[in-house]
Parts: sequence; structure tokens; C-alpha cells
Amino acid sequence: MTASPSFLDRLRAECPALKLSQDPSDLTEYGRDWTRAVDPAPLAIAFPATTEEVSKIMKLASATGTAIVPSGGRTGLSGGAVAASGELVLSLARMNRMHSVDPLSQTVRVQAGAITEAVHQHCEPHGLTWPVDFASKGSSHVGGNLATNAGGVRVIRYGLTRNWVLGLQVVLAGGEILEINGELEKNQTGLDLRQLFIGSEGTLGIITEATLKLTRLPPPTDVLFFGVDGLDGVLGLFREARRQPFTIQAFEMLGANCLQKVIEHRSARPPLSTPASDYVLLEVERPASEAGQQELQTWLESLFERGLVQDGTLAQSPEEACALWSLREGISESIMSAGLVHKQDVSVPIRELQGFCSRFERELGEKYPGHTLYLFGHIGDGNLHINIAKPEGLERDAFYARCKQIDEDLFRLLQAHQGSVSGEHGVGLLKKYALSFSRSPAEIATMRAVKQALDPKGILNPGKIL
Amino acid sequence: MTASPSFLDRLRAECPALKLSQDPSDLTEYGRDWTRAVDPAPLAIAFPATTEEVSKIMKLASATGTAIVPSGGRTGLSGGAVAASGELVLSLARMNRMHSVDPLSQTVRVQAGAITEAVHQHCEPHGLTWPVDFASKGSSHVGGNLATNAGGVRVIRYGLTRNWVLGLQVVLAGGEILEINGELEKNQTGLDLRQLFIGSEGTLGIITEATLKLTRLPPPTDVLFFGVDGLDGVLGLFREARRQPFTIQAFEMLGANCLQKVIEHRSARPPLSTPASDYVLLEVERPASEAGQQELQTWLESLFERGLVQDGTLAQSPEEACALWSLREGISESIMSAGLVHKQDVSVPIRELQGFCSRFERELGEKYPGHTLYLFGHIGDGNLHINIAKPEGLERDAFYARCKQIDEDLFRLLQAHQGSVSGEHGVGLLKKYALSFSRSPAEIATMRAVKQALDPKGILNPGKIL
Repeated sequence: MTASPSFLDRLRAECPALKLSQDPSDLTEYGRDWTRAVDPAPLAIAFPATTEEVSKIMKLASATGTAIVPSGGRTGLSGGAVAASGELVLSLARMNRMHSVDPLSQTVRVQAGAITEAVHQHCEPHGLTWPVDFASKGSSHVGGNLATNAGGVRVIRYGLTRNWVLGLQVVLAGGEILEINGELEKNQTGLDLRQLFIGSEGTLGIITEATLKLTRLPPPTDVLFFGVDGLDGVLGLFREARRQPFTIQAFEMLGANCLQKVIEHRSARPPLSTPASDYVLLEVERPASEAGQQELQTWLESLFERGLVQDGTLAQSPEEACALWSLREGISESIMSAGLVHKQDVSVPIRELQGFCSRFERELGEKYPGHTLYLFGHIGDGNLHINIAKPEGLERDAFYARCKQIDEDLFRLLQAHQGSVSGEHGVGLLKKYALSFSRSPAEIATMRAVKQALDPKGILNPGKIL
Repeated sequence: MTASPSFLDRLRAECPALKLSQDPSDLTEYGRDWTRAVDPAPLAIAFPATTEEVSKIMKLASATGTAIVPSGGRTGLSGGAVAASGELVLSLARMNRMHSVDPLSQTVRVQAGAITEAVHQHCEPHGLTWPVDFASKGSSHVGGNLATNAGGVRVIRYGLTRNWVLGLQVVLAGGEILEINGELEKNQTGLDLRQLFIGSEGTLGIITEATLKLTRLPPPTDVLFFGVDGLDGVLGLFREARRQPFTIQAFEMLGANCLQKVIEHRSARPPLSTPASDYVLLEVERPASEAGQQELQTWLESLFERGLVQDGTLAQSPEEACALWSLREGISESIMSAGLVHKQDVSVPIRELQGFCSRFERELGEKYPGHTLYLFGHIGDGNLHINIAKPEGLERDAFYARCKQIDEDLFRLLQAHQGSVSGEHGVGLLKKYALSFSRSPAEIATMRAVKQALDPKGILNPGKIL
């Protein structure tokens, strides 16, 4: 399964124009993603320039049983793009062409290596956007977004990446090129193979091109920041906000200690004068009319009157809005600046959030005192980012060992609350051992059957997910 | 593969409580859908009351290699639920329970046999709806909607059925019960098996329950009716409307002869005084503020000034809105009242619409003079309903034979314009022969591989799609 030097010789002979690298810095750089748990050790990196080259690589890989790791912007957080066993890494970085935006059908065709933010900039002059948006958009590739069905802060408004793809071009394990669905909105002709490849983390095929569905640029927004009493208060506010006529663009939760860390680390001004146990960042599309804005104002006042929030502020300028967002976006970096942090990305049904969080906090405090828990995330999707800081004085290895125990407890608790061990980061290498907490044996058997059907030799991103 | 009387005996022994019918009227009724091209001839109809009964049926079917046809509300238009070869029909009609609506997470769990309209009524008191909406909602089942990824007039606003499902319970060919995704919005743990079953027309598994994602009831709407100059005018208006700040709920096109037929058949009042070649029904969410309404009014006036429409009207009351909608919804019935009609449901990329329609009209007129073509549909999704009326004097069988030729020309033209031979009605039995015009050999081989992986004995809805 490992790629061999003779494989590279044959590849060079069959694709004389293919760019191949065995430069040690390339092997390190393209052999891993943002995770650092596994050391990269690929045989070589291929940088195809065309779908035909990708097809030739896969034909030869299939004939020789060579393992291939598809690679995008390498911003993944689950080791899904890590090549640690002498595989050939197939980087889509050179395939980054974007076709013209079609303003009538609101679509754009791009190659898999196009960078997310570049797609945004490409569409913006037409008043359009591809509403897939998250912190790593400056490096992440469209192909990687599709392969992981990327989430982010706008899912509550636009849904997952899956919803914003019309057509896919995919190279199969044996080198066949599939052109799926073109640019059709409706096409009820058998299985929707698109959906199978989206989110499959490169285990079923190599996405080489996509026709993306676009939408209007969002109107101006209002950014609000509230202090509330516990997760109960967070969810009460969520229920209230969803009943209002305005459109929610984001609903993010952060615990008091998360906010505290950001304020310390960034020397930020506290946004509210009254302290609270939990905070909410709410972004809504600004009502077009003055009457609508007045309505929003009245709603805000009523939140105070009804005791639904303890304090709150509405950004008065784009700069203030930006400052409020930086309190949410700075959490990860601020916690990590203080020392070693163990991270999990999980999700639970919204109505299970409170029970899950309070049990987890209690059990963690009882079994592992001294471990600080930071909770934040895309609460409107039930998606929580759990960060646990290493207690001072605990050795690094002892902390890692303890985190393994904590994770087991966490996964069991997630299972009891019908949650998922991976909300949006995927399974890759790092969550493989936890898959059975979220997927039943019958589901895993079905996934294996589909994998076997599409990649019988197991050469596509082997060892990932299953 | 055919179900045998001894199979029924074993089924009775293993599921003593299972309701089974061999009543001739049941065999006819439950052995077919709304199509009438194939005569129903099932062995028997099973009406399970629980998922466990469905599982037992499938276990025995798998052990004996017995063909099973899953059956919902039987409103399909492709023969997907037709049982014509001695199969056992598995009707989900008795499994129609609906759980309580969860207003916080905006979800509801229902059994597959719940009727679409009943789900709407169940959710409405909570200010919520399941935005899957089409003409047959009074009979269609949720399970059937999911199995066919149903479309309809609201797709332009809400997307396809696929977007409005969180969890699925599916019984596999071998009887295993899958519980997929529960009620999670985000769950990136391997393949999204939900998406595989949605739209698979009962060929991969039996959907028995689903957790549906709900949304707020739409606000009051404005219904507008325009006369425009040709498809060019229709698309020009579409482009204009999509640029406006208001939200489009529907954008339907109807040719002048469609409108004429409805007016004659229903003795309706012509909605506009100026005749046009094509008409558009546009429904938009009414701006909440007076300023917003004024803006809409100003936009309407500008359409006339800029010559984008030839005539237009805005419904002044719910009754007027209803009357305008009935002009669109009455088309099918009105055309059919005049005689035999051949129907196709196709889709093309929006930017190909004009080229496709004009070529099809021209070729039809040249090759088959005397055949009247009626064009209407969900133009905002590129989804066209094509109706061709039998010329007077032409024999029924001669007309059918000619329609086969017309279809071949149509499918070839669709292929040239990157279209689909089935926009929303599915493949079932009736479009099988046309599948290769919309899906490549590599795609069909991939579909077959997935079918083989999930249903190795080929007992689930055999002969459908592939």
C-alpha cells in the first residue's frame, strides 16, 4: 500500500509534465494539516495541474495498490489530510482556477484548489457570495471544504457547505472521471452521488472541480452582545430570537472564563459593565426600514424588562461590531496562550444542551479537580467547542493521559445525550477511535460497504474515518 | 424474486399481528401510484404498524429473495411505487404517528406514513412549518417525499426536501434498523448516509421514521402576475427580482396557451388586459414596513417604465391572490380536460433555458406539425413541465408512438443543454430508459455499485431506476 520509488518512476514516465516533489520541507508541509499529533512521512507530493493528471495518478495508484492522500489547504483539525505512512500526497494547490461568475443563475465553477476567501472576492463585485465562512478561509480550499462539509459561524443562517454545491467533478479510485449534476438545481435521476462525496474526507474520490451555488451578499447587520444567567439563559434568549421577524446571521455562546481570557490576553475593553455567567454574541440582519429598526430596539428593551438578559450592548459602528466579534474569535488563541489545552468539537441536540453541559461540568469537577473547562461555540447549531486547560504543576504526558480518560467520559456522556463526537471538524485520524460512540455498528457496516464499493483496493486516504 | 404464497404463510407465522391483504381492490389500489402506464399485479399488501414489523418483513424477504415494493401516498408520477410482478407491497400507511413539536429546536419526529398536510397542520399552532409543499400534499406521505426528494413550488425559497431532514430511521434490505443522525444539525462523523437514502426511490432501504427540521411560518406574501415578452422577458424579470431586497417565495412561468386553457376550462377572468406571449406568477414575502412596501411598489412601477413587463397586477386581497395561483395550478387539469396529453418533467441550467426551449419548439413544429406544446413550470429552478396535446384526428396509439420519438429528440436536446430528463418526478419505471441521457456510464456504474453494496440480493424495489 505504501508508495514505492518504482511507483514514482512509472508515474514520471506516464505523466512527464506532472510536478512531483520529494523535498523534505514539502514532505513535512504537505504531509500534514493543522494538527500536530502525528508526524508526516509521505513518499512524495504530486501537484497535478489538470483533472487528466489526477486521473492518470489514480489509474496508476489503482493498478499498483498505492495509497493516496488528497490534500487541500491543510487547515483540517482531525488529521484527515495527514500522510504518515509513505503515501503519495495529491495536492490540489495548483488547480485553483475560477471561471466567470454567472449572475443570472448565481453560480460559479471553480477548481478544487481555489481558496475560500478568493472565491468570496471573486463573487463580491456581482453582489454575490458563497456563504461558506470560517476562521481559516484565507488558506482553506474549496475542495477541502467540500470533502469535510465545512461548518463555521454562518451555518445557522445558510446551513452547511453541502447546501451550496450544484455540480461536482470527481476522480474515482480507478481514475474514472465523474461529472455530477452540472449546474442543475433539480435533477431527480437516481442516487445523488454528490452528497456521497461531500463530507467523505477524501475516502471515496478526489474532488477536482465544483459548481458552487451563490447567494446575495448579506445586508448590513447589527451585532449584539448579552450577558445571561447560565445556559438556561442562553437557550431562553435563543428561543426568543428565533421567534422574531429578523434574520439571525450568528448566535454564538461563550462562558464567562472564555471572555475573561480574551480580555486579559488582548487587553480588550470589557463589553458590558455587569458580569454574568455566560455571554451571547447575536448578529442579525438589520431591518431595512426605520420601523423595523425601532421594532428591534423595542425587542431589546423587552429582553431587559422580562429579565431574559442581565446586560447587553448593540454595536454602534462597524468598528464596535468588529470588537465584539474579536471577543468570540479570540477565545481559542487566548486560552492557548496561557498553556497546554485539550480541545474537543462536539454537538448535541439543542434540547439536550443544558443537561449535557451541566453533567459534564459536574463530572469533570468531581473526577478531575483543577482542570479548567472553557465552553463556547455555535450554540444555535448545538455545536460546542470544549477546551480543557492543563492544571499548573501537572506534567505534559500525565495531562495527555488524563485527557484520554476525560474524552472517554465525554464520549459516553455524548452518547447518552444523542450527541456527536465531531460537530464539524470531522473524523480523520484523530477521532477514529471515537466513531462508535456516534455511529452504530449497523451504520459503520453500511459505511464500510459503500467504501468497499467505491474503493475496493482501499487506496483513497486509507486509515481515515474507518 | 416474486413473492410466493409460501412466503406469505411464513410471514403470517413470524408476524402474527401483521395486517396483510390480498383483496383485489387493495392489490389494485396499493399496487400503483398516480401513473397508469403499467398494470398493478402485486402478490399481497403488508401494512406494518411498527418498525420491528418492517424489520421482520425485510429479514424474511432477504432470506427468501422476495421482492419488496415500498409504498407511501402513491402520488408519484414515475411509477416508482408500482408493483407489477408479484411483489409484496410494503405500505407505510398505518405508521402515521407524529410526535410533539419541539419548539426550541424547531423539529418534529414523525413516522413515514404521516401525510404531508397533516404535518403542516400539526406544526402550525407553534408558528412553524415543514416547508415541503406541492399539489398532492393532501395524500403524499413524508416517507415518499423523502424517498423522492420531493420538489414543488417553494424550492426557490427553501430548497429541496433533502434540506429539511435531520434524522432518519431506515430498515435495510437485510432487516437491520439504522438510526441516522438523530436530531443533530451538525454531525461530521463519516459518510452522511441520510443523503444516500433521500431520493433513492426505495431502492436502498425503507424509511420508517424521520426527524424533520422546521422553520417559521412564512410572513404574509404579495402575489403578482405579469405578462412578458418571451422567455427572454421571463428571465429578465427573474434576474431583476432576485436582485431586490425582498424574498421570493415562488417564481412560476406559464405560456400564453396555458393561461388560455385555464381561462376557458375554469371560466376564469383574464388577469391582465394586455395579452402577452408568456406570463409569470411571482410571490414575494411582503415587506414588514410601509417603507418596504413602498419600495416594492416603486420597483413594480420601474418594471413598466423600463419595458421589462408588458402588463402586471398585484393581488389586493387573499382571494385575488388565490385566484392568481389557481391560474397556475389549474394548468395541468385544464389541458387534460381537452384530450390526451403527453407530459414530461425536465430541468436545464437557467442560462440554457432560452436556447433549449426555442430549439425544442422549433424542432417540434418542424417535425411534428399539429402537436400543441404547453410550457410551464418552476422556472426559478430551471424546472419545466412540458405538455404536448394529441392532435385531433390522430389515433391514440399513433400519438403514443409519436411521443416516443418526440421524447428521444427531447432527451437528446436536454443532453446537449446539460439538462435532466427528470426535474422532480424521479425515474421509477417510466424514465429508466432515459437515465443514460442524464447520467454518464461511470455514474450509472457507481450507482450500481452502491445498490449492490446495500441491497446485494436486489430485493428492494427491483427494476426501479436501474
